[in-house]
Amino acid sequence: MNNRLKKQIDFIVEIDKLKSIFRQSKLAHVSRFENDTEHSWHISVMAILLLEHANDKAIDLIKILKMVLIHDIVEIDAGDVIIYDLQRRKEIIEKENAAAQRLFGILPGDQRDEFISLWKEFEAKETNEAKFAGAVDRIEPILLNYLNQGYTWQKNNINSKQVFERNRQIQEASSVLWEYVKGIINESVEKGYLKNE
Amino acid sequence: MNNRLKKQIDFIVEIDKLKSIFRQSKLAHVSRFENDTEHSWHISVMAILLLEHANDKAIDLIKILKMVLIHDIVEIDAGDVIIYDLQRRKEIIEKENAAAQRLFGILPGDQRDEFISLWKEFEAKETNEAKFAGAVDRIEPILLNYLNQGYTWQKNNINSKQVFERNRQIQEASSVLWEYVKGIINESVEKGYLKNE
Repeated sequence: MNNRLKKQIDFIVEIDKLKSIFRQSKLAHVSRFENDTEHSWHISVMAILLLEHANDKAIDLIKILKMVLIHDIVEIDAGDVIIYDLQRRKEIIEKENAAAQRLFGILPGDQRDEFISLWKEFEAKETNEAKFAGAVDRIEPILLNYLNQGYTWQKNNINSKQVFERNRQIQEASSVLWEYVKGIINESVEKGYLKNE
Repeated sequence: MNNRLKKQIDFIVEIDKLKSIFRQSKLAHVSRFENDTEHSWHISVMAILLLEHANDKAIDLIKILKMVLIHDIVEIDAGDVIIYDLQRRKEIIEKENAAAQRLFGILPGDQRDEFISLWKEFEAKETNEAKFAGAVDRIEPILLNYLNQGYTWQKNNINSKQVFERNRQIQEASSVLWEYVKGIINESVEKGYLKNE
């Protein structure tokens, strides 16, 4: 086997570990926690279907899909931290950078550079592609939490103000989807799934 | 919420069930069965990384990713059948067609048509995109089985001739990847993971 293919296969085997990194949300139809690969698959399909609602109609789907598919790989080393824990989110940044270097570093140089660059673009949320990838990344757990009658919000003592503030960025990617999300959040408060601030 | 977005969200919620459809292969690092969404995520990343090895260099990645991401959704209704059980694979075709109509039928008409068309293209394996999507779909479980010392092959009494015959189609997508797979199969026989025909 040539050395380039060997590096690619080594990476493909390594990232199998992402199937064992569990998130804070539970599935919609079964009461167990979701893992990072299930989430990444789900938001990839969401990106394809919901692309038409992006504010920027000239957005690049292939870049969005690449970002969405690899955005959580660093969690193999750094673990999953809930977006509402701002202190721990800050603390994890260095760990995630080291994880990106180690994990994407398994790849051939050009692919390592491409994946690190895609991951950084996703994290920075400056491009329209990163904003849209970030939007589906946020919408999926809100939807799952709504379907689970607010399980994760209640467990972590989250209120509606926090959910609005930490997810408001969806608006920059899609006004349509942000309207939809606001509706879910308000309905969650009305139904008692999420406490009002 | 507008009616189009409602249909898209209904579909997004429905396909969460694919996270509970388990396959025949076990994970690389943990002894539990893989589910369809984990597999779909894994082969999506593989398609991105291994694209350079495709025989057809002008192949369309976005179409490959779409096919790979949705190819197993019909199994929500039809279930997973191992590729080596030719009789059951034949019997399942009608069930899978009905599943495609019901599941993709949840979507708005144009997206239903696009997804059914992508799924049929994947199944037919006539275009170079479908061949490449099919190749990564075959390579991942072979790799997992090799890493699990032949668990699924032994459990289902599969021999090397069957593995060669049922996966030979990888060659049409990529000579490089088929060489690699042949190497894994031969090594599996040498190590006693897979019985020689």
